[in-house]
Amino acid sequence: MKKFEEKTIQSTPIYSGKIISLKVDDVLLPNGKEGKREIINHPGAVAVIAITNEGKLVLVEQYRKALERSIIEIPAGKLERGEEPELAAKRELEEETGYGCHEISYLQSFATSPGFADEVIHLYVAKNLYEIEEKAELDEDEFVSLMEVSIEEAEEMVEDQKIYDAKTAFAVLWMKLNSGRA
Amino acid sequence: MKKFEEKTIQSTPIYSGKIISLKVDDVLLPNGKEGKREIINHPGAVAVIAITNEGKLVLVEQYRKALERSIIEIPAGKLERGEEPELAAKRELEEETGYGCHEISYLQSFATSPGFADEVIHLYVAKNLYEIEEKAELDEDEFVSLMEVSIEEAEEMVEDQKIYDAKTAFAVLWMKLNSGRA
Repeated sequence: MKKFEEKTIQSTPIYSGKIISLKVDDVLLPNGKEGKREIINHPGAVAVIAITNEGKLVLVEQYRKALERSIIEIPAGKLERGEEPELAAKRELEEETGYGCHEISYLQSFATSPGFADEVIHLYVAKNLYEIEEKAELDEDEFVSLMEVSIEEAEEMVEDQKIYDAKTAFAVLWMKLNSGRA
Repeated sequence: MKKFEEKTIQSTPIYSGKIISLKVDDVLLPNGKEGKREIINHPGAVAVIAITNEGKLVLVEQYRKALERSIIEIPAGKLERGEEPELAAKRELEEETGYGCHEISYLQSFATSPGFADEVIHLYVAKNLYEIEEKAELDEDEFVSLMEVSIEEAEEMVEDQKIYDAKTAFAVLWMKLNSGRA
């Protein structure tokens, strides 16, 4: 879909980092005027709605420096270069929770901040979980603690802003809609 | 919540733009090692799940340069400096759709990309809509087209990836869960 397309006149790279990069694009707007767009490029990510055999949602708590606080999220992580999203989803689930899954299915994808970033999250649903004997290692700068909660507990966490994250807020609604099938 | 807190050793500003700014923080990790965090600061935003008197969801299509495509979203926009979120939600609804509302309520807030950005979206539900006679003006670099869709149509748009945005994906599930009360 190219409605209201903004053609790039010039693209100026500002920063290229470990995870994100920043550029400023001069664009031609649909009305013929010029504008500027500040754009973050990100490798994309996966996230997993993992349901335990008891019907609970698997969550991880971690410190988010950007927010200067800890929040509680569904397991998620960046795509490695060239990595197939479903494999990344399984990898992140194992690394962050110690769970493998016998069943995984693609749910949907969405951009997290389309106003300034190209980050897209690919969401998976994992069921039929089992504990991995030899636990996979987290990234060296990653510290998480694991919890498993019922829908009611998850809704309380939304209320208390312990769940304070778009993909996890989505997962809580999804679980509520699909709990009969979990 | 400060679990696994990462203390800032040094913060290096990289870019300060019209909407976002970028800094790189050197941090002390919980294991005593040092790490780097690339962080985008954003003023925060509001978004509105607006339900027409016919029970339809109000959506806007706009070009998102970061994604290089048009997507369909619930009405949303950045907070102006010092602006009260509920007023911002009403303002964005009016500017983007030409609708005022007699009823607006706060739903919840969430971070969109906590791994690298501090952007938080405050979500509102607007009902009892009316058409404004003198339409408010969009920002000079903003071009949107309006549509009103049923839950079924919204779900098809998710399927087709026309809805490809976290807050709007959340809104579709919310509407499905609450359609009896719309």
